[in-house]
Amino acid sequence: MTHKIAILGASGYTGAELVRIIATHPDLEVAALSGERKAGQPMGSVFPHLRHLDLPDLVKIEEIDFSSIDLAFCALPHATSQAVIAELPRDLKIVDLSADFRLRDPAAYEKWYGKPHAAPDLQKEAVYGLTEFYRDKIAAARLVAGTGCNAATGQYALRPLIEAGVIDLDEIIMDLKCGVSGAGRSLKENLLHAELSEGYHAYSVGGVHRHLGEFDQEFSAIAGRPVEVQFTPHLIPANRGILATVYVRGDAASIHRALADRYANETFLTVLPIGETPSTRHIRGSNHCHIGVVADRREGRTIVLAALDNLTKGSSGQAVQNANLMLGLDEDSGLTFAPVFP
Amino acid sequence: MTHKIAILGASGYTGAELVRIIATHPDLEVAALSGERKAGQPMGSVFPHLRHLDLPDLVKIEEIDFSSIDLAFCALPHATSQAVIAELPRDLKIVDLSADFRLRDPAAYEKWYGKPHAAPDLQKEAVYGLTEFYRDKIAAARLVAGTGCNAATGQYALRPLIEAGVIDLDEIIMDLKCGVSGAGRSLKENLLHAELSEGYHAYSVGGVHRHLGEFDQEFSAIAGRPVEVQFTPHLIPANRGILATVYVRGDAASIHRALADRYANETFLTVLPIGETPSTRHIRGSNHCHIGVVADRREGRTIVLAALDNLTKGSSGQAVQNANLMLGLDEDSGLTFAPVFP
Amino acid sequence: MTHKIAILGASGYTGAELVRIIATHPDLEVAALSGERKAGQPMGSVFPHLRHLDLPDLVKIEEIDFSSIDLAFCALPHATSQAVIAELPRDLKIVDLSADFRLRDPAAYEKWYGKPHAAPDLQKEAVYGLTEFYRDKIAAARLVAGTGCNAATGQYALRPLIEAGVIDLDEIIMDLKCGVSGAGRSLKENLLHAELSEGYHAYSVGGVHRHLGEFDQEFSAIAGRPVEVQFTPHLIPANRGILATVYVRGDAASIHRALADRYANETFLTVLPIGETPSTRHIRGSNHCHIGVVADRREGRTIVLAALDNLTKGSSGQAVQNANLMLGLDEDSGLTFAPVFP
Amino acid sequence: MTHKIAILGASGYTGAELVRIIATHPDLEVAALSGERKAGQPMGSVFPHLRHLDLPDLVKIEEIDFSSIDLAFCALPHATSQAVIAELPRDLKIVDLSADFRLRDPAAYEKWYGKPHAAPDLQKEAVYGLTEFYRDKIAAARLVAGTGCNAATGQYALRPLIEAGVIDLDEIIMDLKCGVSGAGRSLKENLLHAELSEGYHAYSVGGVHRHLGEFDQEFSAIAGRPVEVQFTPHLIPANRGILATVYVRGDAASIHRALADRYANETFLTVLPIGETPSTRHIRGSNHCHIGVVADRREGRTIVLAALDNLTKGSSGQAVQNANLMLGLDEDSGLTFAPVFP
Repeated sequence: MTHKIAILGASGYTGAELVRIIATHPDLEVAALSGERKAGQPMGSVFPHLRHLDLPDLVKIEEIDFSSIDLAFCALPHATSQAVIAELPRDLKIVDLSADFRLRDPAAYEKWYGKPHAAPDLQKEAVYGLTEFYRDKIAAARLVAGTGCNAATGQYALRPLIEAGVIDLDEIIMDLKCGVSGAGRSLKENLLHAELSEGYHAYSVGGVHRHLGEFDQEFSAIAGRPVEVQFTPHLIPANRGILATVYVRGDAASIHRALADRYANETFLTVLPIGETPSTRHIRGSNHCHIGVVADRREGRTIVLAALDNLTKGSSGQAVQNANLMLGLDEDSGLTFAPVFP
Repeated sequence: MTHKIAILGASGYTGAELVRIIATHPDLEVAALSGERKAGQPMGSVFPHLRHLDLPDLVKIEEIDFSSIDLAFCALPHATSQAVIAELPRDLKIVDLSADFRLRDPAAYEKWYGKPHAAPDLQKEAVYGLTEFYRDKIAAARLVAGTGCNAATGQYALRPLIEAGVIDLDEIIMDLKCGVSGAGRSLKENLLHAELSEGYHAYSVGGVHRHLGEFDQEFSAIAGRPVEVQFTPHLIPANRGILATVYVRGDAASIHRALADRYANETFLTVLPIGETPSTRHIRGSNHCHIGVVADRREGRTIVLAALDNLTKGSSGQAVQNANLMLGLDEDSGLTFAPVFP
Repeated sequence: MTHKIAILGASGYTGAELVRIIATHPDLEVAALSGERKAGQPMGSVFPHLRHLDLPDLVKIEEIDFSSIDLAFCALPHATSQAVIAELPRDLKIVDLSADFRLRDPAAYEKWYGKPHAAPDLQKEAVYGLTEFYRDKIAAARLVAGTGCNAATGQYALRPLIEAGVIDLDEIIMDLKCGVSGAGRSLKENLLHAELSEGYHAYSVGGVHRHLGEFDQEFSAIAGRPVEVQFTPHLIPANRGILATVYVRGDAASIHRALADRYANETFLTVLPIGETPSTRHIRGSNHCHIGVVADRREGRTIVLAALDNLTKGSSGQAVQNANLMLGLDEDSGLTFAPVFP
Repeated sequence: MTHKIAILGASGYTGAELVRIIATHPDLEVAALSGERKAGQPMGSVFPHLRHLDLPDLVKIEEIDFSSIDLAFCALPHATSQAVIAELPRDLKIVDLSADFRLRDPAAYEKWYGKPHAAPDLQKEAVYGLTEFYRDKIAAARLVAGTGCNAATGQYALRPLIEAGVIDLDEIIMDLKCGVSGAGRSLKENLLHAELSEGYHAYSVGGVHRHLGEFDQEFSAIAGRPVEVQFTPHLIPANRGILATVYVRGDAASIHRALADRYANETFLTVLPIGETPSTRHIRGSNHCHIGVVADRREGRTIVLAALDNLTKGSSGQAVQNANLMLGLDEDSGLTFAPVFP
């Protein structure tokens, strides 16, 4: 049986990535696409790489008849999302890709996003969408909050280590390298090709990146006490990919075992043999995440590296993985396509 | 029913691309992989982006039991291919991705490749693999010769125009821009990232590129008289993609109509509305080809542009498309995945 | 003696390139910088790569005391430039980098730029700034119009051939590949790194690019009769560089000789040995232009290739070269820095 | 007075960069170029971007008459360099760009490079070439050992902090991102454009990179006790640039002050205002190094970032800076060219 899907905010990169994935998904069908500023346009003129597909034109959200929709992906900008979802039917299944429902605590939301949440009841209802760790809740949820792409990467590297108690919780440094598409399709001078290409830099340095809110929430919850990591993202001149290089205190063998054990049955999470390291090029365009563990020359210090594609496993692939669970489908349905290399 | 596939020469880019495609193909299964220098290694260590797949290890060709193989792809270097195929069982279905069987005329082969063909009987047997134009012959063939990636691009732009008689056959100039992966995985100084990135240049200038042999053969056959195009390829700092900019004499509307009519029912060939132009980014990683037609300001001069992915539609995707026909499958089976953008 | 320089419109790429060049110029000194929207900011915050230099802050044009300025570079947007220059002192030496004064004929200007020229007297006064061909006039000029970067590249390839009468004037096709910085620092979706990188396409296809106005003007003037070339630019994912691939009718040896003779004494124009071809990577960041000539396999057809850096020889380097002449300095003063490779 | 320079090993990137710099150096002249495998070739065919220069052809080292040479740059491969230098005249001034003379302790050399040093007397003689910290010794030296490019970057960030005692010496983590040219012009599969572009990864993870030998030597010497940092380099798809992100314990304001005070009079080392961060694009192609300091949200933790161009300030620019001192010239002579952006 085919499930009918709406994508709200389909004119951004995560929207286009959802369409790309659903195009070969055996059980999902794109039934509606919204894009406020581009309403009335065919999707193929907004994203010519999708022109071969038989897709509905972009419309305004209010033009969509949600009674025929089985699940909606919300790929709207932060803040917009909570306002829109509050107006949608309360029985509609929703996977939200924005930051609006990632933080469960209203105070934490206000701290990181600068103003009170506009839909606190929905905030309470939402399930955090890191599939491999919230699987049962997601399957039963109506509203799932997709994680930040950086937040997903860091959590895949660290959650099993905190759960297993094999690292020092006060000494975690995450140096993260993110590709350009993570910044979205917004018109900013520093995202121009001529500015960005052939150079790289750190941004949001010092612990001010909003994805830290997710790390704090999740790591503290696992540990049962406050955990604050250091986190420095860098913008790298490549379109896709996140690489987290995490410096921890703990025994490399124990750390590797904790990860390997935890992910032994996960389709999309691969722990490399100890000493091997991942590369973003080897997961590009796929829903896979590669994780490596290397002992440092300094006793008791270990480096954990995780690589995934920010648009796929970090965002739209994760969203489809969650939707599969919510719709009672195989979790990996439509997501087994291989990475694109070179 | 699943067909068992061998890929000979699986350690190059076209070999990896075949595996990527077959990974989600409903009817094909990789049963054997060969790689002379890398025999004994798992495919996942030669191509870590394929490490999540359950694949046979690389072996030497002589280790493969071809009695259980339904079809072999040969992704071997030029000249090696003819020697290897001559030794394979004569009833084995083969799609060859090398240049060895593209030219039907032994003299033409010797002219362009510098020495006599080593397997002239096979050369005679081979069917030229430009699917949309040799569909019936391919379906009945045992040995199909994949086209050059540049040669495919240029032919998609020009064949219908020669067939329809809407252009001047003596005034065809093809300026082609090719991505880096077309040069393969060979260790050459000018293919290093530091050499290639941020620069571009023409190569094989003056009509010496071997794909001209294919243009000459095919265009002359259609026209029933010798046709010699001008052809200048350029190397562009992008991994995938070919863009052919073809300058012809003829009426733009007639030219557009000839292309649109000819490709109206082709899944993978899209003729854009007149005046629109294709981009390699919009077909990247897919089996699609976009074609545009624009009238020049000079009366009677028209520019035809065609874009495809050299590794997919220009090589491994084409090979699977042909294999589908040879195995009695739907021609587009396993090939409908969307382009990857950004 | 040091000459005091003002740069109007210093917040764009050509403005920054002027500062880069002048930073090591022995006889020029930056005395004033204007930038309307960024007035009040230090140049080092608009362009951090220039932060080590002792530069005046950006101001509004009206704040500049031109009585102490020896020469002004205008790197303002098209149309703005003519309005601004009309208000500047009439004895101020000016090199304009915009398109406003490139076309001498008011009708041609209106045709290509869509409205009448606002300063026709200045249009009449302006000298076309292709240094090697207008040297004497430039030395005596007060107002010099920098050429289009594409226009410069194409003219270096073609002017000596038209002068020498060695090519067919009705059969000139110029296929040009331009780097990204040529599009400037404007915020357009298609200039984002995620859109542009790893893909390429033709634009302004069919003879509608404004630089054709310059080709028409200049080539017709040399030939003494109308000459209309075909011209198709392509956008390539590299920051700097223009490569013109020009298809002409004529004997390769004669063509090579015409170019080699004409440029024998030019510091910045190098004609490669016949059969060799240029690459943009070999002139990147410099004021040099490399030109190659190759005979096609088709008798009487020749390919001429020219490569230069759009920001340097195509724009700001040319501007300094002209300023040197206007100020009585050595023409190559401050311009002999080598290309940056890799 | 012009000093005559020989460059041994001129066919690699650092050799070419030396030529680029010397091309506009007022007091140096390239008098001899060696390249074993390319002996007999003009430099302009090995590096076409240098073809406009009047340079001697490449020769074998033994063909050079060193009696007329004032100073030789050795840009030879590691291990080769010590053998070659041992045979050169003992009164010839030499700046070595290899790793052969960076480590003063024979045991440390053997530990990091895997075999005993072949010229221990020269090893003893050599002065470590980090200009701003060994200025007087370099001025008096005959043989100067250029630093590793990563090693230079990390030391610029850390030396003043160790000297000033403002950081915890046992808690230093350096996460470094290096451009491609740092790997040289060697033919390795993982350096091909198709492999490298659009992806990134860590390498030499766990404290095995040889530049750690330099960090250990230098930091321990300053501190007067063993200091071992953690160091993880990453390969980034950009041609030039190194960015070191250093995680330290200490007060950000004290750290910023220590750096700003130490570098207040350094031409090429710029400490940004506290809270600002450097980018490799802003020093590309120049001899400048930008350093930033940001306080982390975690009390007492600070991030120090340093960016330089591996081929210029990290290698050939540093070498010329040292040569200037050794020849009694102004230290910044020929090195004041601005970065190339975009």
